[in-house]
Amino acid sequence: MEIPPPNGLITLLTDFGHRDPYVGIMKGVAKRHFMGAEVIDVCHDVPAQDVATAALFIAGMHEHFPVGTVHVVVVDPGVGTERRAIAVCVGGAYWIAPDNGVLEAVLADVAASGEVRALDLDALGLAPRSRTFHGRDVFTPAAAMLAGRRYGFRALGPRIADVQRGSTGIGRSEVLVIDRFGNLITGVTAAVLTERSVTAVRVAGRRLPLCGTYGEVAAGEPLALVNSYDLLEIAVRDGSAADRLGLGRGTVVELLAEEP
Amino acid sequence: MEIPPPNGLITLLTDFGHRDPYVGIMKGVAKRHFMGAEVIDVCHDVPAQDVATAALFIAGMHEHFPVGTVHVVVVDPGVGTERRAIAVCVGGAYWIAPDNGVLEAVLADVAASGEVRALDLDALGLAPRSRTFHGRDVFTPAAAMLAGRRYGFRALGPRIADVQRGSTGIGRSEVLVIDRFGNLITGVTAAVLTERSVTAVRVAGRRLPLCGTYGEVAAGEPLALVNSYDLLEIAVRDGSAADRLGLGRGTVVELLAEEP
Amino acid sequence: MEIPPPNGLITLLTDFGHRDPYVGIMKGVAKRHFMGAEVIDVCHDVPAQDVATAALFIAGMHEHFPVGTVHVVVVDPGVGTERRAIAVCVGGAYWIAPDNGVLEAVLADVAASGEVRALDLDALGLAPRSRTFHGRDVFTPAAAMLAGRRYGFRALGPRIADVQRGSTGIGRSEVLVIDRFGNLITGVTAAVLTERSVTAVRVAGRRLPLCGTYGEVAAGEPLALVNSYDLLEIAVRDGSAADRLGLGRGTVVELLAEEP
Repeated sequence: MEIPPPNGLITLLTDFGHRDPYVGIMKGVAKRHFMGAEVIDVCHDVPAQDVATAALFIAGMHEHFPVGTVHVVVVDPGVGTERRAIAVCVGGAYWIAPDNGVLEAVLADVAASGEVRALDLDALGLAPRSRTFHGRDVFTPAAAMLAGRRYGFRALGPRIADVQRGSTGIGRSEVLVIDRFGNLITGVTAAVLTERSVTAVRVAGRRLPLCGTYGEVAAGEPLALVNSYDLLEIAVRDGSAADRLGLGRGTVVELLAEEP
Repeated sequence: MEIPPPNGLITLLTDFGHRDPYVGIMKGVAKRHFMGAEVIDVCHDVPAQDVATAALFIAGMHEHFPVGTVHVVVVDPGVGTERRAIAVCVGGAYWIAPDNGVLEAVLADVAASGEVRALDLDALGLAPRSRTFHGRDVFTPAAAMLAGRRYGFRALGPRIADVQRGSTGIGRSEVLVIDRFGNLITGVTAAVLTERSVTAVRVAGRRLPLCGTYGEVAAGEPLALVNSYDLLEIAVRDGSAADRLGLGRGTVVELLAEEP
Repeated sequence: MEIPPPNGLITLLTDFGHRDPYVGIMKGVAKRHFMGAEVIDVCHDVPAQDVATAALFIAGMHEHFPVGTVHVVVVDPGVGTERRAIAVCVGGAYWIAPDNGVLEAVLADVAASGEVRALDLDALGLAPRSRTFHGRDVFTPAAAMLAGRRYGFRALGPRIADVQRGSTGIGRSEVLVIDRFGNLITGVTAAVLTERSVTAVRVAGRRLPLCGTYGEVAAGEPLALVNSYDLLEIAVRDGSAADRLGLGRGTVVELLAEEP
């Protein structure tokens, strides 16, 4: 596995919202540990403890940052329990997150060319002071130590193989999240659609064409397309697919290939 | 026209909101194209596709940034159509935006000392990958290439003269936007008020004094004043002008000059 | 008093929200005055003019930033009146704020090892242009001049001793703020609890244990604990203390020490 040189960038993806100073405090902590850190907010409005939505955002963002970026993810229903904090190196990036499956979109590539480590909090001097604010006490300091090259990736803790997988639905052919426009976002990646020569989908007994753009169907009509996250989405042109089709999270989507 | 050296700053003004990772992804893209970029958020809560509000924000912000800043504006109802993406150099700053009139506040000065270019996406290697996310695929990369001096302003594309103007109301003597406090914001600039020695306005048959501060009228009384955007505003002291006067967008405001 | 070298960081804590470009404009102004400034948002969703909540946030954040940071606080019900703008140097940090008590959490240490100065706006060339936007015209420029070492702390204005104190409740044994989860946050610091060997509290005639974590009581039961701000909080496990106990702001909390 190639270990990229950290580039000084740290991104933050959390469910902390904007009403409190929590995110600002994390940035102060990053700077205390590494004055050269540059911190970028990815999103802080993930619905509270919604690991599936955070996993989806990661699927859409991971390729758009420079090599050597350290991504911090704090959507952590298990804070205060014995769940581990992990560090992942894969695809030219680093990820620091709780071991709850939120990194599914990047863990898929770990077997071929990545590595997962469990953070050794005692060795890193990061025994958390608060039982509820590990973003401040654990994840951000670990990320800053890595970004600032105080610890190399392999010094963060022992390598582990039993990382949690499969809980968020990335890769599954079903509706994972409904966005604010009523679009039904599935776990099917664009790569899978290409591999299998998919030209349409069947959902709730209905066949929908896989289109390149909304304009290929009439207003009010449903379609399937690849969205900004590079995931298969069921949408309705100028409308809400959730309302129009009456479908929700967990609905199975069947992939239909062109006949040769 | 003077071409200022880019200073590395890129600002973002969009209607993307905070619920999704879109803005964070744009920042990753900026860094991928130019690792020295410093990105500043101006606002991401412009109402969806509300070009007039974005145009107003630009009127209020443009003079407050250092010379050489590259401003990116993505309020773009025409995304996916044939509308052009443009770059403007005027007043010591650069602007990258769709050609939909949102830059009205700065376009007024282009004739005297500025220039507009249509982005040549093929030449820049920016054929958009997504039909809906040109903030990521077009506007931010172009801004980063300019801020990072990979392309000079004049290399971004051909000079154009037929840029869209006049659609947002900046310069018009009418109510353009009602803010959250019920203030009625017009398109009249402070400069025009001075030039014409305006001392009062007439709106809906009523004469209102042009005041320096709310304190010049009694609580609950309406007045005219110059707001933080340097635009004429109709307000009510300790109240909502929209509610109190029953006026809305498009209401004409007559400017009354002092008698000599 | 030790005067720390400014480190280039400026933080912003305001009640400006995210709907307008105000915060973005402040960042432009910071950069105009000091191109090397790095600006960190602490929070902009303080409820409008809620000095007590801002004071609480400061109690929770102040120790988490690097030495030499300049913190700007603009929660300012008195804007446009004669209230002073002040600069404080204490605990290795600088604070720029209105003189309205919002800095209570750090002013407590000024007598021992700090200093307060009234900003001399005329000398600094900062006569405000707007009567309502001193964040742009006064506080941010002063912070940037200090962070960029254009003026030393003692050149910002005359030393004053009569700074406003005691209005926000930090240090008081009562409920100051109710957070979004219905937790009742008091002004009692963790240090006071330790000094006085507090093991329980009495509130509304009821004795509640001082716990280390929610898990020490049954679901639905009330408890006292130290929160992420290092302040005493009355909470209900898996519920809202405000609803369950029917208590509000101003409720007195009695501290009960262990018997020796």
